[in-house]
Amino acid sequence: MSLDLATKPHEALAEWLADDLAAVNTLIRERMASEHAPRIPEVTAHLVEAGGKRLRPMLTLAAARMMGIEGEHHHRLAASVEFIHTATLLHDDVVDDSRQRRGRPTANLLWDNTSSVLVGDYLFARSFQLMVETGSLRVLDILANAAATIAEGEVLQLTAARRIETTEETYLRIVRGKTAALFSAATEAGGVAAGAEEAQVEALRAYGDALGVAFQIVDDLLDYAGTEEIGKTVGDDFREGKPTMPVLLAVARADDEERAFWQRAMGRGALEEGDLAHAQALMAKHGAFDATRDAAKAWIARAKESLERLPEHPVKPMLASLADYVVARLH
Amino acid sequence: MSLDLATKPHEALAEWLADDLAAVNTLIRERMASEHAPRIPEVTAHLVEAGGKRLRPMLTLAAARMMGIEGEHHHRLAASVEFIHTATLLHDDVVDDSRQRRGRPTANLLWDNTSSVLVGDYLFARSFQLMVETGSLRVLDILANAAATIAEGEVLQLTAARRIETTEETYLRIVRGKTAALFSAATEAGGVAAGAEEAQVEALRAYGDALGVAFQIVDDLLDYAGTEEIGKTVGDDFREGKPTMPVLLAVARADDEERAFWQRAMGRGALEEGDLAHAQALMAKHGAFDATRDAAKAWIARAKESLERLPEHPVKPMLASLADYVVARLH
Repeated sequence: MSLDLATKPHEALAEWLADDLAAVNTLIRERMASEHAPRIPEVTAHLVEAGGKRLRPMLTLAAARMMGIEGEHHHRLAASVEFIHTATLLHDDVVDDSRQRRGRPTANLLWDNTSSVLVGDYLFARSFQLMVETGSLRVLDILANAAATIAEGEVLQLTAARRIETTEETYLRIVRGKTAALFSAATEAGGVAAGAEEAQVEALRAYGDALGVAFQIVDDLLDYAGTEEIGKTVGDDFREGKPTMPVLLAVARADDEERAFWQRAMGRGALEEGDLAHAQALMAKHGAFDATRDAAKAWIARAKESLERLPEHPVKPMLASLADYVVARLH
Repeated sequence: MSLDLATKPHEALAEWLADDLAAVNTLIRERMASEHAPRIPEVTAHLVEAGGKRLRPMLTLAAARMMGIEGEHHHRLAASVEFIHTATLLHDDVVDDSRQRRGRPTANLLWDNTSSVLVGDYLFARSFQLMVETGSLRVLDILANAAATIAEGEVLQLTAARRIETTEETYLRIVRGKTAALFSAATEAGGVAAGAEEAQVEALRAYGDALGVAFQIVDDLLDYAGTEEIGKTVGDDFREGKPTMPVLLAVARADDEERAFWQRAMGRGALEEGDLAHAQALMAKHGAFDATRDAAKAWIARAKESLERLPEHPVKPMLASLADYVVARLH
């Protein structure tokens, strides 16, 4: 039921942006081609056409439309954002040695790690070519900064693994790298391309950032509190020793015995039967689920406050509903 | 002896550009830092400070100086070129599963593939940030195109492996991806940053391209004709089934029996004792060594012709000597 209700805002946005999205999809198909290396479009198509929701390019299109864009630069920008996203997915699957994404085998499994690394590099270069075509150095600056934050966040996640003493500050930095940096770059760049005023560009950036942070916090919560009907595998982060918010909150409130448990299971990765259930029980006992949900809700409130600073436009209530949808998955 | 003579042009250039190079090294050290993810500068320093020759950034500096650059944008550009080079080395070592580079263990061996992929991504993003600071969209265009050509060439090399029927056209495309694309982008961007005229920018681009193609052809030749005193491991390309120029020439002139040998050894990778020596003997028999050397020399001649189109400057004879040095390794 909640899922049914929840998918609506995303679909409404896609419907409103249908022409723009069609143009972006055409551009993506054109630019992922490589006349000389057919492996490139093969690998890319596997991922790009696997039915991703195009959430990030939609954020760019929505921001640009709200700010009254003319011309077609927002299509290039949206395609560029999707290429950066796809490149990071390809590299992430190598890094995590993933075998499934969006219900299908990953590219590194179907081809090899090598293809995933190189095709990711190709898409990254292609994304910068598209940005250059928009003629905006500021857009390039925004997305180059986002790319650096993404890579930095991934490295940080790598070095924070199995460290239950990770601070909330570091966690937030990882969350920005994984999700919020590209969300905020997508909305900010859309506004810049449309020539929006500084205060509006900042509001768009803040919306994307808050939406992205909430999105990732919810994702991290569902890794413990999710159900199969939502399509989430529960326990991946626990097994991989990723110090996410529900863990950090439970660890902060742990007594000595509980702390020893977290150190053994997540810190050393010495898992025993029933550990995941015990971890979930400790989270429930210390209110870590509720506190994590509250944190996500607070970010959603911030996202919607940022929208308040933007002019009235048919897209605006859709972006507000999209924000609500992010936490609606938790009910 | 030949080595002694050969290192001179490179050192002369480094001496002439000493102040610029010092500024570039400072910039590299500053920008490879990551306050939050210390793994990044660790991995980068391992490679950047391992005594690479800084050939590519020197090409940018030399081109910019020849064209009378003022200000400091050429330092940012040279650092950017070195970051792209370092990023591709990190990713190449993952792709090739290399264990040694520049006589030291590779980053993927010391840390892991994951760190190499992500730190490469970080440096790539950093390089675009530096380019944005130069304020030149054209420079960004040149280097984004180079980055796409590099990735495309690597994918092409991957799919051409073990195909002894690879065409010379595909080989040249691989060579441009591996080496010439960044060489030519380095010289072209240096000229653009200095505000050189179109004809001069084109001459600089052509010099870098021809130098890079010759450089890679010689490298591929040394993989069969090199000696240990030159520091080359002979036979890597043969074992990995990479269809390089000496192979393609020997295959083109092969009789049926020889073709069957190439197909077994390089096409199927079913190596037997003495195969490398037999391959070298076939190359000698068919004049493949000489023809490859002649091809490299022709590219060097083109590089020097391109220099002729540029104004007189103290750096110009050094760039000509650098071109001669590339083939001098073969004597």
